[in-house]
Amino acid sequence: MKKYLLTIAYDGKAYSGWQRQELQPSIQSLIESALSTLLQTPTLIEGSGRTDAGVHALGQTAHFSCNRPINKKRILLSLNALLQKDIRILKLSEVPKTFHARYSASGKIYRYHLYVHPILPPFRHGFVTHIPYPLDRERLKKGCEQFIGTHNFSSFANRQHQGSAGKNAVRTIHRLEMQEKGDEIILEFEGDGFLYKMVRNIVGTLLLLATGKIKIDEIPRIFATEDRRKAGQAAPPEGLFLVSVIYPDEEFLQKSEIEEREPPLLVER
Amino acid sequence: MKKYLLTIAYDGKAYSGWQRQELQPSIQSLIESALSTLLQTPTLIEGSGRTDAGVHALGQTAHFSCNRPINKKRILLSLNALLQKDIRILKLSEVPKTFHARYSASGKIYRYHLYVHPILPPFRHGFVTHIPYPLDRERLKKGCEQFIGTHNFSSFANRQHQGSAGKNAVRTIHRLEMQEKGDEIILEFEGDGFLYKMVRNIVGTLLLLATGKIKIDEIPRIFATEDRRKAGQAAPPEGLFLVSVIYPDEEFLQKSEIEEREPPLLVER
Repeated sequence: MKKYLLTIAYDGKAYSGWQRQELQPSIQSLIESALSTLLQTPTLIEGSGRTDAGVHALGQTAHFSCNRPINKKRILLSLNALLQKDIRILKLSEVPKTFHARYSASGKIYRYHLYVHPILPPFRHGFVTHIPYPLDRERLKKGCEQFIGTHNFSSFANRQHQGSAGKNAVRTIHRLEMQEKGDEIILEFEGDGFLYKMVRNIVGTLLLLATGKIKIDEIPRIFATEDRRKAGQAAPPEGLFLVSVIYPDEEFLQKSEIEEREPPLLVER
Repeated sequence: MKKYLLTIAYDGKAYSGWQRQELQPSIQSLIESALSTLLQTPTLIEGSGRTDAGVHALGQTAHFSCNRPINKKRILLSLNALLQKDIRILKLSEVPKTFHARYSASGKIYRYHLYVHPILPPFRHGFVTHIPYPLDRERLKKGCEQFIGTHNFSSFANRQHQGSAGKNAVRTIHRLEMQEKGDEIILEFEGDGFLYKMVRNIVGTLLLLATGKIKIDEIPRIFATEDRRKAGQAAPPEGLFLVSVIYPDEEFLQKSEIEEREPPLLVER
């Protein structure tokens, strides 16, 4: 029995989210179907975590086990041939038997994209949250600093995790950086883990701040209440990207199956 | 009677092209419908030229006339509110009465995007031409040089213009630059005008060169034949962007209606 890790990019627009569901197409179930076809045996994958409907990924990960040898490159290319073009398997790596896509992860990186202009260019539609009114970028930047470090994020976690004891809502955000590219603002989060809807709830709260609806000293107070209802509404899913899942020992993930480029298909005449 | 110029961006994926057609949705007809609704009178627009089905634009232009004063900013925002999100009016400028979107243009800039890797990321799907095998980038670059300057482009123009006398197929390409961004190659064309499918036919021919199907000295020979059948097949539409239309006197186009940002919708509490 060998274990493999998939690195996956997807445009979440058309899907009900990562997780397998009864009736709607999910990214997980489509990959499982394609993999089961190729491996000729029902095969389940275990993701690093879920992403909600409409959320995108540049580097989601998921592992699966297989009890016979596989040709990694062939499986990688065949998976992409079977899957919809808005889901791409970028890498297929063999991992140790003890590896787990979720439990072996030491952190994750997310990006949230805001487009601040009255008119949203057609090519950014679906990949940013459109803010047609101005934002106070200085306040936004200062607000980001409030979330860095180790905190109890209960006020920024939706119900799924609300039930758990306060202690379980303690997470560390190592970085929350704001990049500006013209009218687009990108908030990049790196943390040891993220509670359900935590990034979107933080962004929703930062938007209240950047539009003058709350003052910066209200953010520590929102943290202190440990009450989800005190923070801002979740920002929409379309601006959110799961950028990458961090594993402490990434050596086994470095090698790509298709680094060696194919020779040209056509020959000099 | 006043004349106005629209600057338009669109994702061409869903449309049969720019030009008004009987049964299929075209970008021109959708803008004309929205404009006619807003101006409360049937209003036609005249584009700088057509783009084919699937071709995108970052800065297509089109003019229209209107015999009563309009609030440019209101019309601009209302047009965008009425139109599909994959068509955006970026600017609305008043132009002199003698102005014509097509005949006043002194040139155009196009970009053609190639993505050269076995796996196409989901977010580039529809906006690049996917080349899953390697290309010889040096040959591609050398090939570009062959097209710069004033030539009779009959061999690279499709039938629509094939009927016209050879002299009408003389065009000047001022620039054909190749930019490389990782796996993506962007070919940027600036010229005084482009014949029907000329950019895509040139790219198709460059692809023959970069895959070793033809040698570089065959390009002058293809030009000399003035025979469309000697050049490569048209490259697919999805990689092509009309970047901008150049007008010799662009002063009237500099001012945007929405440079002045709106005050925040929400107030400090």
